Amino acid sequence: MKSHKHPLVTPTRSVDGGSWAGSRHVSPVETWLFNRLMDLMGDPAVSVHFWDGREHYRCPHSQPVGLMRFMDRTTFWRLLANPTLHFGDSFSAGRIQVEGDLVGFIEAVYDAKVRRTRPGALQALIKRGLMRPGRSNSLSDSRDNIFHHYDLGNDFYRLWLDDEMAYTCAYFADPRMTLEQAQAAKLDHIARKLQLRPGEQVVEAGCGWGGLARHFARHYGVHVRAYNISPSQIAYARERAQAEGLDDRIQYIQDDYRNIRGKYDVFVSVGMLEHVGVRDYKTLGRVIDRSLKDDGRGLIHSIGQNRPEPLSAWTVKRIFPGAYTPTLRQMMDIFENPGFSVVDVENLRLHYAKTLEHWLARYERHEGEVRKMFDDFFVRAWRLYLSASIANFRAGSFQLYQVVFTRPSKHDMAWTRAHLYQGQPPPQPRA
Amino acid sequence: MKSHKHPLVTPTRSVDGGSWAGSRHVSPVETWLFNRLMDLMGDPAVSVHFWDGREHYRCPHSQPVGLMRFMDRTTFWRLLANPTLHFGDSFSAGRIQVEGDLVGFIEAVYDAKVRRTRPGALQALIKRGLMRPGRSNSLSDSRDNIFHHYDLGNDFYRLWLDDEMAYTCAYFADPRMTLEQAQAAKLDHIARKLQLRPGEQVVEAGCGWGGLARHFARHYGVHVRAYNISPSQIAYARERAQAEGLDDRIQYIQDDYRNIRGKYDVFVSVGMLEHVGVRDYKTLGRVIDRSLKDDGRGLIHSIGQNRPEPLSAWTVKRIFPGAYTPTLRQMMDIFENPGFSVVDVENLRLHYAKTLEHWLARYERHEGEVRKMFDDFFVRAWRLYLSASIANFRAGSFQLYQVVFTRPSKHDMAWTRAHLYQGQPPPQPRA
Repeated sequence: MKSHKHPLVTPTRSVDGGSWAGSRHVSPVETWLFNRLMDLMGDPAVSVHFWDGREHYRCPHSQPVGLMRFMDRTTFWRLLANPTLHFGDSFSAGRIQVEGDLVGFIEAVYDAKVRRTRPGALQALIKRGLMRPGRSNSLSDSRDNIFHHYDLGNDFYRLWLDDEMAYTCAYFADPRMTLEQAQAAKLDHIARKLQLRPGEQVVEAGCGWGGLARHFARHYGVHVRAYNISPSQIAYARERAQAEGLDDRIQYIQDDYRNIRGKYDVFVSVGMLEHVGVRDYKTLGRVIDRSLKDDGRGLIHSIGQNRPEPLSAWTVKRIFPGAYTPTLRQMMDIFENPGFSVVDVENLRLHYAKTLEHWLARYERHEGEVRKMFDDFFVRAWRLYLSASIANFRAGSFQLYQVVFTRPSKHDMAWTRAHLYQGQPPPQPRA
Repeated sequence: MKSHKHPLVTPTRSVDGGSWAGSRHVSPVETWLFNRLMDLMGDPAVSVHFWDGREHYRCPHSQPVGLMRFMDRTTFWRLLANPTLHFGDSFSAGRIQVEGDLVGFIEAVYDAKVRRTRPGALQALIKRGLMRPGRSNSLSDSRDNIFHHYDLGNDFYRLWLDDEMAYTCAYFADPRMTLEQAQAAKLDHIARKLQLRPGEQVVEAGCGWGGLARHFARHYGVHVRAYNISPSQIAYARERAQAEGLDDRIQYIQDDYRNIRGKYDVFVSVGMLEHVGVRDYKTLGRVIDRSLKDDGRGLIHSIGQNRPEPLSAWTVKRIFPGAYTPTLRQMMDIFENPGFSVVDVENLRLHYAKTLEHWLARYERHEGEVRKMFDDFFVRAWRLYLSASIANFRAGSFQLYQVVFTRPSKHDMAWTRAHLYQGQPPPQPRA
């Protein structure tokens, strides 16, 4: 089993080594500074206790939905210096503790931020030290970034994903669906949006563990070439396609989307765009343009946001190096140069919140097994990541866009979208 | 009745006054130049005859779908100097004639252009003398521009619009619908997207002849304040609301959208954005932001395009001064600053082609009446405008976007879009 080391998180040391840092006394300056930060953050509906055990911030407008504790002064000052980075690391190290509902606590913080209509001083403050959203990921960067996340081991993801290993937003056509049903419903929703016809050629960029290709080949009779740079995901996908007798219709290719070759009826990419640097969106557009036949069409499914802001420094550092969630405007870099028509955009953000709720519940059920694979820091970090993601989608700071596009002169798209909501989807992929 | 004078369209004069221009002989240079222009335009599937009565261009790839004639040499040279402006004026003056299906002819031209993936030399050529897309419309410009088009007289539009006077894309939920049914279906589609609830306050920017406000007030029990700067449209709208007993729920206000005051649950604008300069999209966003309550939502319905290009010089000069059709990227200027969530984008371009087919058929049926109101130039110009619009929407050079947006933290939007396609819409507005 792998062990993740976090050398930056050393045992508490006082900032100046003197007795001041060791004192449990909270100075009025510390209280004032923290309340100023909360003010800039829109006064989230939370309560915050300091290392003296006493409450030093309480939302002035509404009942706190959660309580957070600084375990020591050093953590407090680290947080002030770079809140988005050090909240995550300090939480993971157990030096910030949240009592009660973690998701609700984070949601209160995001909600206050989202309700601030104008990006203000806080933006300038929290952008310190964050990634540049415009950075481009080279082929080798991309490999390193993807290894960091997706090669934590299939055994780890198997603990809390559905049995097809879909690691993207599901579609709860009915909110009572199981996670398995909703992941299959997502694939059917996409297949219907793309109006797949038997025998067509589909290319997929960023195929994860290969579930979309299996579902499309099995239920829609299409041929799929699916690209992914993660070796452990590709190995898993090939094994399953073979075991399920689908390897005559699916080719899993361990390569970058920029190396896609051939001509296809359909281009599809679910949850890869977050790992494509904004500067490469035009490249992606060129790849799609040269890959699509004259009557081709496609769909891109990606996390997005309303305004262009970097992901939190902590997320980029610990969870998704090189990741970025685009605005719809930025996504148009993909479609505009090749002159594609955008025919449908659907925002499924609340479906992602629900998907993540299922993942978090399964993660918590399997905490003991995760703990055998990784250290405490990792266990808490992933709890925070899943919880914060739920909060982001609920509060509306993250969106989930499905964008359908066609060649500009394609005329035989569906007359309305009614067909997406009529009739039965194909049977579930596995009994 | 009004008469439109077109001083620029004087009787044919030779370009140099000599016998060369009067000669019916076509020089090899003229043939070569024209074929070069056709090449730049992607070799449209048409045939072109010159003033000597002979064919000098024929599509090298496919059977021509239409035939165009230059009636004289001067018209030919004018067209070369500024094709997008002078095609329209020369057609309207009868100096360019198209035999057979005018829509099919124009569609062949647009189709060739749309299929050229990269904007190239042609772009540079045809942009000569065109409007700047970035221009802003001042309040008085806006008034002049709107008067030019919408104050041609209600009697004129009544000849070929539906009986609610909707001058925007209809929604043919079923392609066999009548125009009247499809215009009502469009309003129901919008009402469902907005999830209108009885008693809510709606503000409409650019209300035309007021049909949306009447439909919403009558069938959804909401209160509507509808803004429009066209006096003849407002007068018509007020009269009808009173006659139909809706004036307790509708206020028609003769004013610019920038002067909207008050707080509303819903913002809606159908077919106004085309008259808002791109530079004012952020202003429009601010107007919406200050007008919407905390759980507000809205819809903007507008003609759009895949890449940012000005409307044809002729359209801007003769039909829609100050008009521009934005890309989705440009539309994001409205939503991004106030941090709105875009929750749904639908592209209804083929529905606009069908709407225009209905309008053109009615226009042709009433040609005799139009001819009593306006001169021949006007009659042909409007035939060209309606035909070219059909061709633009069919060929995919125009799009029709309906964009639904909400406050970022609004959580009670519909879980899926299935409700748009279920159950019966309310009964038709008029027996």
